[in-house]
Amino acid sequence: MKKQDVFDSISPIDYRYPDKEVVHYLSENGFTRYKLLVEIALIKTLHKRGICGADVIKEVELACEKVTTEDIYDEEGRIKHDIRALVNCIRDKISKAAKRFVHMMATSFDISDTANAARYKDVTKKILLPKLIKLARVLIEITKREAETKQIGRTHGQHAVPITFGFAIAEYVSRLGKCILSLDKLSDELVGKFSGAVGGYNASSLFFDDPEVFEQEILAELGLKPADHSTQIVQPEPLIRLLCEVVTTAGVLANLSRDMRNLQRTEIGEVGEAFEGDQVGSSTMPQKRNPINFENAESFYTIVMPRIITVFMNQISEHQRDLTNSASARTYGEIFAYVASTAERLTRTMKKLQVDKDNLQRNLAFQQDLIIAEPLYIILAAMGHPDAHEKVRLLTLQAQQKHKPLEKIAIADKEIAPYFEKMTPYQRKTLSNPSTYTGISVEKAKKIAAEWTERLKELEQNIGRGTFPTIPK
Amino acid sequence: MKKQDVFDSISPIDYRYPDKEVVHYLSENGFTRYKLLVEIALIKTLHKRGICGADVIKEVELACEKVTTEDIYDEEGRIKHDIRALVNCIRDKISKAAKRFVHMMATSFDISDTANAARYKDVTKKILLPKLIKLARVLIEITKREAETKQIGRTHGQHAVPITFGFAIAEYVSRLGKCILSLDKLSDELVGKFSGAVGGYNASSLFFDDPEVFEQEILAELGLKPADHSTQIVQPEPLIRLLCEVVTTAGVLANLSRDMRNLQRTEIGEVGEAFEGDQVGSSTMPQKRNPINFENAESFYTIVMPRIITVFMNQISEHQRDLTNSASARTYGEIFAYVASTAERLTRTMKKLQVDKDNLQRNLAFQQDLIIAEPLYIILAAMGHPDAHEKVRLLTLQAQQKHKPLEKIAIADKEIAPYFEKMTPYQRKTLSNPSTYTGISVEKAKKIAAEWTERLKELEQNIGRGTFPTIPK
Amino acid sequence: MKKQDVFDSISPIDYRYPDKEVVHYLSENGFTRYKLLVEIALIKTLHKRGICGADVIKEVELACEKVTTEDIYDEEGRIKHDIRALVNCIRDKISKAAKRFVHMMATSFDISDTANAARYKDVTKKILLPKLIKLARVLIEITKREAETKQIGRTHGQHAVPITFGFAIAEYVSRLGKCILSLDKLSDELVGKFSGAVGGYNASSLFFDDPEVFEQEILAELGLKPADHSTQIVQPEPLIRLLCEVVTTAGVLANLSRDMRNLQRTEIGEVGEAFEGDQVGSSTMPQKRNPINFENAESFYTIVMPRIITVFMNQISEHQRDLTNSASARTYGEIFAYVASTAERLTRTMKKLQVDKDNLQRNLAFQQDLIIAEPLYIILAAMGHPDAHEKVRLLTLQAQQKHKPLEKIAIADKEIAPYFEKMTPYQRKTLSNPSTYTGISVEKAKKIAAEWTERLKELEQNIGRGTFPTIPK
Amino acid sequence: MKKQDVFDSISPIDYRYPDKEVVHYLSENGFTRYKLLVEIALIKTLHKRGICGADVIKEVELACEKVTTEDIYDEEGRIKHDIRALVNCIRDKISKAAKRFVHMMATSFDISDTANAARYKDVTKKILLPKLIKLARVLIEITKREAETKQIGRTHGQHAVPITFGFAIAEYVSRLGKCILSLDKLSDELVGKFSGAVGGYNASSLFFDDPEVFEQEILAELGLKPADHSTQIVQPEPLIRLLCEVVTTAGVLANLSRDMRNLQRTEIGEVGEAFEGDQVGSSTMPQKRNPINFENAESFYTIVMPRIITVFMNQISEHQRDLTNSASARTYGEIFAYVASTAERLTRTMKKLQVDKDNLQRNLAFQQDLIIAEPLYIILAAMGHPDAHEKVRLLTLQAQQKHKPLEKIAIADKEIAPYFEKMTPYQRKTLSNPSTYTGISVEKAKKIAAEWTERLKELEQNIGRGTFPTIPK
Repeated sequence: MKKQDVFDSISPIDYRYPDKEVVHYLSENGFTRYKLLVEIALIKTLHKRGICGADVIKEVELACEKVTTEDIYDEEGRIKHDIRALVNCIRDKISKAAKRFVHMMATSFDISDTANAARYKDVTKKILLPKLIKLARVLIEITKREAETKQIGRTHGQHAVPITFGFAIAEYVSRLGKCILSLDKLSDELVGKFSGAVGGYNASSLFFDDPEVFEQEILAELGLKPADHSTQIVQPEPLIRLLCEVVTTAGVLANLSRDMRNLQRTEIGEVGEAFEGDQVGSSTMPQKRNPINFENAESFYTIVMPRIITVFMNQISEHQRDLTNSASARTYGEIFAYVASTAERLTRTMKKLQVDKDNLQRNLAFQQDLIIAEPLYIILAAMGHPDAHEKVRLLTLQAQQKHKPLEKIAIADKEIAPYFEKMTPYQRKTLSNPSTYTGISVEKAKKIAAEWTERLKELEQNIGRGTFPTIPK
Repeated sequence: MKKQDVFDSISPIDYRYPDKEVVHYLSENGFTRYKLLVEIALIKTLHKRGICGADVIKEVELACEKVTTEDIYDEEGRIKHDIRALVNCIRDKISKAAKRFVHMMATSFDISDTANAARYKDVTKKILLPKLIKLARVLIEITKREAETKQIGRTHGQHAVPITFGFAIAEYVSRLGKCILSLDKLSDELVGKFSGAVGGYNASSLFFDDPEVFEQEILAELGLKPADHSTQIVQPEPLIRLLCEVVTTAGVLANLSRDMRNLQRTEIGEVGEAFEGDQVGSSTMPQKRNPINFENAESFYTIVMPRIITVFMNQISEHQRDLTNSASARTYGEIFAYVASTAERLTRTMKKLQVDKDNLQRNLAFQQDLIIAEPLYIILAAMGHPDAHEKVRLLTLQAQQKHKPLEKIAIADKEIAPYFEKMTPYQRKTLSNPSTYTGISVEKAKKIAAEWTERLKELEQNIGRGTFPTIPK
Repeated sequence: MKKQDVFDSISPIDYRYPDKEVVHYLSENGFTRYKLLVEIALIKTLHKRGICGADVIKEVELACEKVTTEDIYDEEGRIKHDIRALVNCIRDKISKAAKRFVHMMATSFDISDTANAARYKDVTKKILLPKLIKLARVLIEITKREAETKQIGRTHGQHAVPITFGFAIAEYVSRLGKCILSLDKLSDELVGKFSGAVGGYNASSLFFDDPEVFEQEILAELGLKPADHSTQIVQPEPLIRLLCEVVTTAGVLANLSRDMRNLQRTEIGEVGEAFEGDQVGSSTMPQKRNPINFENAESFYTIVMPRIITVFMNQISEHQRDLTNSASARTYGEIFAYVASTAERLTRTMKKLQVDKDNLQRNLAFQQDLIIAEPLYIILAAMGHPDAHEKVRLLTLQAQQKHKPLEKIAIADKEIAPYFEKMTPYQRKTLSNPSTYTGISVEKAKKIAAEWTERLKELEQNIGRGTFPTIPK
Repeated sequence: MKKQDVFDSISPIDYRYPDKEVVHYLSENGFTRYKLLVEIALIKTLHKRGICGADVIKEVELACEKVTTEDIYDEEGRIKHDIRALVNCIRDKISKAAKRFVHMMATSFDISDTANAARYKDVTKKILLPKLIKLARVLIEITKREAETKQIGRTHGQHAVPITFGFAIAEYVSRLGKCILSLDKLSDELVGKFSGAVGGYNASSLFFDDPEVFEQEILAELGLKPADHSTQIVQPEPLIRLLCEVVTTAGVLANLSRDMRNLQRTEIGEVGEAFEGDQVGSSTMPQKRNPINFENAESFYTIVMPRIITVFMNQISEHQRDLTNSASARTYGEIFAYVASTAERLTRTMKKLQVDKDNLQRNLAFQQDLIIAEPLYIILAAMGHPDAHEKVRLLTLQAQQKHKPLEKIAIADKEIAPYFEKMTPYQRKTLSNPSTYTGISVEKAKKIAAEWTERLKELEQNIGRGTFPTIPK
């Protein structure tokens, strides 16, 4: 193993935010592991077709267990070709008779692109989705728990009309839930390839009449399907779609974080991140309670979102391929890693989110009188007032100038008074007690919590069913 | 109508690349039209629920036919609120009794966001998809016509092994085809809303016990569905997903253009854009045949792709919404417009694409001897040569140095000669005549052409079935 | 003139946010005007060199006054070449003898790129910079006026230690000021070219021994210089640098807007946008005071910032140029237009910014006791307390639990009491009256206001001195 | 030292493309080193002001030599604050009496931001610029060597008129040269800060009457200056400007690579990357000579360019700062690292660039006859032909149809023949021998080579003069 001081790393994903679970898939060692799996899948398929014996599978599997990334890099240093280096490393460890079956008919990107499809599918299914589902469940819990906790709704940072805190969180259950479903589906659509140097099955058709079936057989060993057409590389779009959704998911998490961060402002104080015992808030201001985890989630978003441009730039590859995407596609793993880490962090933080009911109540009461402006205008309009919006605007100004409740001002207004008499009791009650003006926020919060509990349960069972070959390590 | 010199426009989409068809949906007039449709849908639903008479529908529809964007802007100039201005313009044109039903219970973004969902769905289904299908069919025609036209495959700009030109175009049939299917699906998933100022149905629940059903009824008038949760605005993700796919589609078109442009290089000359009679190639170099249409398609891609960042930035909206996405979301129409225009232009250009068979043949022969390096290595390896890759590499260098055909060098090589005797006739033939080494390129091209002919036919029938209310104009 | 309904435009810069002043430079008509100026500059230089008579200048100038963009587009429709079309339009309007001098030795991009350099320089100097300077002066006024208005400083949305509102605004005076200086400098570095079809002066050296001097003479007519090397096009970097700075400037304006928007939150309420008489805040919530102008400024930023990717993508042009930047470079004017409009809007908004001193005072008092944590820790540390940070953190927790002022808790603490006795009077005063703990905020605000008043005055005089030929229109 | 397998890294900058030299500055260990330098600079300044003894400097310096990043991370794990952890690590290693001077009056970002300014300035001056200058010199060498090597100029991938290969490379000397000058200047403009938690010098003004001077003194120890205003953090614009220029530089290198890569196409073959002995071109196509280094340079560009969006997103920080830029700003080092590596790689590749004069000659002759179209049209126009452009276009078509040289066709044309008689000998010669139609390409190439040799020499002397304190490690 080529060891080095972890703090000699340049990328924070390697020295500050690494995560053992994702490293297994996304590190260079992880990539090696998957490339070896593809080489093994080839051997197994050759065996099924009677081209090599079962002993060759055994030999190659044993060899693959011993191949290290370091060996491959050393060999690559010598011959300047990464996949050929990997092949040499396998072949060095097997019998002369078996050698010829290794990488037989394959081109480099049959191996690399297939390995990437397999590991990105795997990391999505086994790491990212479980982490996101865990977060979604924490949000569902809050939605249920706070379904009836009143909160002032805000638009433009201004108080609008009331909702409940559970309803506000239900937004993220719904948005995150849909991302989860979409990620699952898009990861299933990643494709591999075994169609040779320019996609025409030139090599494999030297030996088989059904090279497309041969390709399907190899990929089936890895739980993958081929695209209906590939060049030297697989079509870029399936991975682009998955990465777009990963970034979209990160956007949902960033939006949640932005909201929580703002609710944590000193003047608002509706939520707080629980503070650990020894935690130091600020080096010079020991009293501060910074929303560092939410800020961090937004910051990770700032890292990954722009990288979608790199992904799109790599979509264009000249003719049967150019290599300008080679180094840059190696950075895609970072995108998965940052988003997985964001999910993990937000789960931890939301789990112990403190909801300050006093402050929620205080803020709700802040402009209570003004809240009724909306229902008043709407009721008046519905009852036939010809210009209710303008009328209520003027009454509101009057209420502010006279420092009197809008309801009082309205009832006292000769033009408006008659309308009050014709209102339904529910309408009257709403105007008298604006904090009840929450529409169906409570029911909606509960409904969304219930629905997504079901949908995620279902999804999880499906994901669980997938099987994938793994080299014991 | 507020007229101005079209060349006083700043955006090239307005003075240089406008398209009447898309303008109908994507211009400010188009947006007005759709907002009026939403207001009408509301009135119709109120009528169905017995709240207003059929005469009100009539009145409002007539009024909407008369409302102009200019009127609305004038009113907005006075009251500084765009939707309220639109409402005032309608109300000015109807009876006093009908006024109160206009915009009843609605908040501005119930109208705007629903109108946007409707028009972006519409422009996708009625303009963008038909244009892309037309292009796909032109590509299918070329794929069929050139399925057997041999071409050298290229990787890294270097000659690799042969394919056919039809096979090369089939790549784009397949990639574009999948974008088309995806665009269709994602446009169906755009959602509207009628859930009020903060998404809690606060206003509509003052009148109805089933405000969610009421919302469904209104949206059904427009062929839309609601999201399971919205705030003041609809969830951004459905539109983000559609726009990501629009950009992805643009990327496929740009890649096609890049390939064609390179094939048009003076030294390669495998394809050409047919040149119109009076067309001037260059102001100083009258002899040039510039690939301007392909260059233009790439340039449009350069315009739209980065704008996905704007779309992602707008994903984050604080609490029940902030307005920082308001102006920027108004630019989304440009993305659709540029891509529709790209499709149109490429259809025109590809239709009259000239394929130069002489040059294809010349280029294929360019390094003909070297082409056999791949099959030779693969056959040798398969036959058990312990180090075929390295051996062939050395033979290749030898062939270059001695200026002799690789096949001759190989047969003359003592170590290799015995292998030749054991080869199958097909393998021998391939090595003698490398231009036959096209794998299954021919069959694959034909298969993809056939498959996508079917799939697009099917899709087109489904799109055609959609109906959508339109104000006569 | 080709007139159309302005609301048939797709880009909001054309139907919603146009500005007459920038349209003069940035519209297609503006571009035409500058291209004609370059053709005239060429004629004038030919005259100076004795190649044509003064009458030709006269003729061409008169012709140029009559050429319209519409004519050029009609001609381009026929011959498919934009610059050749422009040349034909001029030549159609002059005597046979004069015709040959028009566009003599020029290649298209000698004209286009030089015209762009001239107009982008011009729009920066004559429109953008004056607007930004005006805004900077409004900010300077606020800085001076509010230099002593105390405000709580905030980090992470949490109260930190006090500053003054003038100091907070001074931040933007300083940041914006530097952008202004940089924009001025970078606009001076835009270059033109007259070096022919591939940059080798191939054409002009058929006639002159000093083609580089000839190029300098033409460009001098337009107040421009040549790059030391160009291909068919000018080097992209000078314009990239200018556009990066335009985007950077937009970022400063967006940051200012974000701050103001947050200070305008209902719970904070330290500033407000003055509200006009008839203005409607929200269609359903008449009481709202939305920070729409600040939101709009952020939204414009969201439009322009990502477009820097387009600019960078256009940096790569193959060999002596490819045309993939042609359409996309036509969108650069929009960047200038949006940012000029942002400056204009913020000037208007900041001019009538309402500062609510009651709320500033209330917020400052909100956690007043906690503010002293910082000075207390720092003083204790400086006086030799071995672990002041940790000690103050514990005292703070104690103060919060006991609901007592931190100062009291600290003085009562046996370990800390002795330190109090040794403090300077200024230090003691600060701890007793935390709102005085503003450091040098007041002086700094005044100093920055004074300095930038000077620097902007100086700059303005320099800009004013530039002269530029303009065709009367 | 916390060791780990280097191939457990996720970012390719850490496992595949690391570079010892940049790691010294850009790794987490590098960052630690610079933060310690800032703490030492503070102590030194306190000593100069007579606040602590010289022995404290000694103690702290010795302590800093022993502090490891791993220790700091362990401490941070405990107290959850990175800078406070660093401070604790220093303080643990010094006498009780000295402890209080460490970090005295400082806030975290006084240390972090100043450290970043110092190390980014340093890595620019000591690593990036020297590498770029080295590359520029290689390009200058090629420019001089190939100043007279004729090459066909290309626009739109089409043959245009001739230049020389040296002239083509001179483009990059000029463009890269200006980037180098700009990087040097912008790195000098990076600023540090010591103005406390919200930028008001709240802490330091408890002790000094001249806190701004105190700040200057500390920063002077590090070769830095303060901004005229800062908040908790330094103004972002100086670093934004530097990073924009780093990306711009990467764009120039990518453009060079694109050009070289295209010249290396099989059909063009004007240049080649020298191939190392054991190098394997392709795993299945042993004959290929892939332009992998140029492809790699473009790929690195695809990584770094989009990240400018991250940099711009971090420009917006709320009030006296929010922390959403904290994690993302940690990725900036990667930008420097990738671009430094690109420079290194291109230097290596360009040094051994093979220029194939036969192919240059062959390509130049490819459409030789057509090349004269431009000079012919220009000369005719200058001589008064009323419609030379159109005339030459028609002659060109005629030449193509009749497969005859354009010159012959032209001389034989009755209308044109008389013009030939009036031409200067130089003009006639050019038309007879189009390969001489290179304008002043030769002189220009030589001039640029000479000029930039001088300018870089000058710059290098200036850079060399900078001194910077470094802890021996």
